[in-house]
Amino acid sequence: MKEFELIRQIQQGTSVSYPPGFEHGVRLGIGDDAAVLEIPAGQHLVAATDTLNAGTHFPVDTSPFDIAYKCLAVNLSDLAAMGATPRWALLSLSLPEADPEWVHLFSEGFMSLAQVHNVALVGGDTTSGAMSISLTALGSVAPGRQLTRRGAKPGDLVVVSGTLGGAAYALEMLQAGKPVPQRHLLDRPVPRVELGRLLSGYASACIDVSDGLLADLAHVLKASGCGARLDIEKLPATDALAKLDEISRWPYQLSGGDDYELLFTLPSRHRSLLATWSQQLELNLSVIGEIETDEGIRCFAGDGSLYSPEGTGFEHFRQKNIYDKNHE
Amino acid sequence: MKEFELIRQIQQGTSVSYPPGFEHGVRLGIGDDAAVLEIPAGQHLVAATDTLNAGTHFPVDTSPFDIAYKCLAVNLSDLAAMGATPRWALLSLSLPEADPEWVHLFSEGFMSLAQVHNVALVGGDTTSGAMSISLTALGSVAPGRQLTRRGAKPGDLVVVSGTLGGAAYALEMLQAGKPVPQRHLLDRPVPRVELGRLLSGYASACIDVSDGLLADLAHVLKASGCGARLDIEKLPATDALAKLDEISRWPYQLSGGDDYELLFTLPSRHRSLLATWSQQLELNLSVIGEIETDEGIRCFAGDGSLYSPEGTGFEHFRQKNIYDKNHE
Repeated sequence: MKEFELIRQIQQGTSVSYPPGFEHGVRLGIGDDAAVLEIPAGQHLVAATDTLNAGTHFPVDTSPFDIAYKCLAVNLSDLAAMGATPRWALLSLSLPEADPEWVHLFSEGFMSLAQVHNVALVGGDTTSGAMSISLTALGSVAPGRQLTRRGAKPGDLVVVSGTLGGAAYALEMLQAGKPVPQRHLLDRPVPRVELGRLLSGYASACIDVSDGLLADLAHVLKASGCGARLDIEKLPATDALAKLDEISRWPYQLSGGDDYELLFTLPSRHRSLLATWSQQLELNLSVIGEIETDEGIRCFAGDGSLYSPEGTGFEHFRQKNIYDKNHE
Repeated sequence: MKEFELIRQIQQGTSVSYPPGFEHGVRLGIGDDAAVLEIPAGQHLVAATDTLNAGTHFPVDTSPFDIAYKCLAVNLSDLAAMGATPRWALLSLSLPEADPEWVHLFSEGFMSLAQVHNVALVGGDTTSGAMSISLTALGSVAPGRQLTRRGAKPGDLVVVSGTLGGAAYALEMLQAGKPVPQRHLLDRPVPRVELGRLLSGYASACIDVSDGLLADLAHVLKASGCGARLDIEKLPATDALAKLDEISRWPYQLSGGDDYELLFTLPSRHRSLLATWSQQLELNLSVIGEIETDEGIRCFAGDGSLYSPEGTGFEHFRQKNIYDKNHE
């Protein structure tokens, strides 16, 4: 299959049907040297890029459907963490060989999530090489309404959506050759786009949990110049993790990556909004701690004792090729 | 070196000093989940993405400086072909190991071209994996002023900037282990950004020559629904190619990729502008043919005889890993 045919196949497999009244703003899509896009008047552009490499960011046995799904999800999660509305995506696909069936399944996975968020694939590039998928997600936000990592203040609540540690636990079971509970938490993370938009204007800081709770909270604290206490018995657990005792469970919840939940800080006067949002989105929102003046993160167990976690999260150049361990 | 340190090093190495009065529009750059960017009021966004893999898109012995330079250049070339003004870039860097010296040289190469065009690096991602550099270039254009592949009409002049075949010739000499003339044509293509902006509003169609003249002209003709004649003795040659006879030279000029010159069609009433633009930019602009009604490309030699070229350009999945042949 030639490059042009591959691009055409992806293009055909990823045409989005927009809902009535949705202004997608694509003036020129795939098929020219670049896409021409119209940002809604007065809005700012929000742009994020993330690359997934086979063996590093997903197990090498992951289906093409799930590879595409995850690649779009992690990028939409970055837009969600900014409170932005996703609009467009550009895709760079490096493949060892151009297999039409692989591309077909990949396109289906991409579309299954793109349609949920009205994301149009407007450009891209296919090349031969080791399998690597690089995606740029573009969205928009009203000026000054973006969520950043910078605004957390002492007294703010520390809140996280959904559950924590599920992806890391699924991965560990997979690597140990054991039955994998809730593998979808690893393969198909849910970008919290609607939550991000609701938080805009209320949350004082926001980030998505990609490297692990402690690591990502540390980013927020560093950018905001403060510290935090965490009440770790309040960390939301997946069904599988809930069956473990706390000492076994906490490391996954504190340091496991790839959950893509939103971690945000909220001035306590807005606390009552949490129940409203939670009901509206049918999504768990857990208050897990509080921002404090002193730098650093202090983890308290349910009995008030201080708990010292070990790892601080996933870093690509430290735990290299973690997905390869049992999948040569 | 950890991922975060690597990102910081690239960030520090690629800070652009903007000229006075230049509105770069970066509301939030590297260091959050996504960048927040302000498009000049009333302008449309132009977005392109291109990936370069070691061994496929550049010889494996290419310096980090030149890898970065070329990666930015080929993306800016896509914006140039749209008549857009480049503004921002997002970079995804996959590296087998995080080598600070490599990153330092890479940042320098990136900057050397980014500063020329006031391009700010606003986001990115570093991952471990086979060497692969994926870049998204973002720019802007006034509504309706973009150049596309679609508008060529019978009677329009076919024009190309600079010279053709130099990159392909340098590559072949390199692969044959011979002295390489003008290797900079392969490693440091010049994106014709200023030319693209001048053409906006005049050229009826435009593309950059990345796959080879015939292949890229075919894209324009297909999109525009017409054909062309080429007077191939008028194809502009590099100094090195000018020393060869025509029969040896033409294949490089017709089918060699990686030149990144602009190929455009111009209504003949604008012919006199070519001399003005050429003088203003100190850049050769050669009329090499004419758009015709009949589909297909007809190549005529200087004596009026029909010439049948062989290849039609570079396609990544056909000529796979061409750069590896002599560089194992």
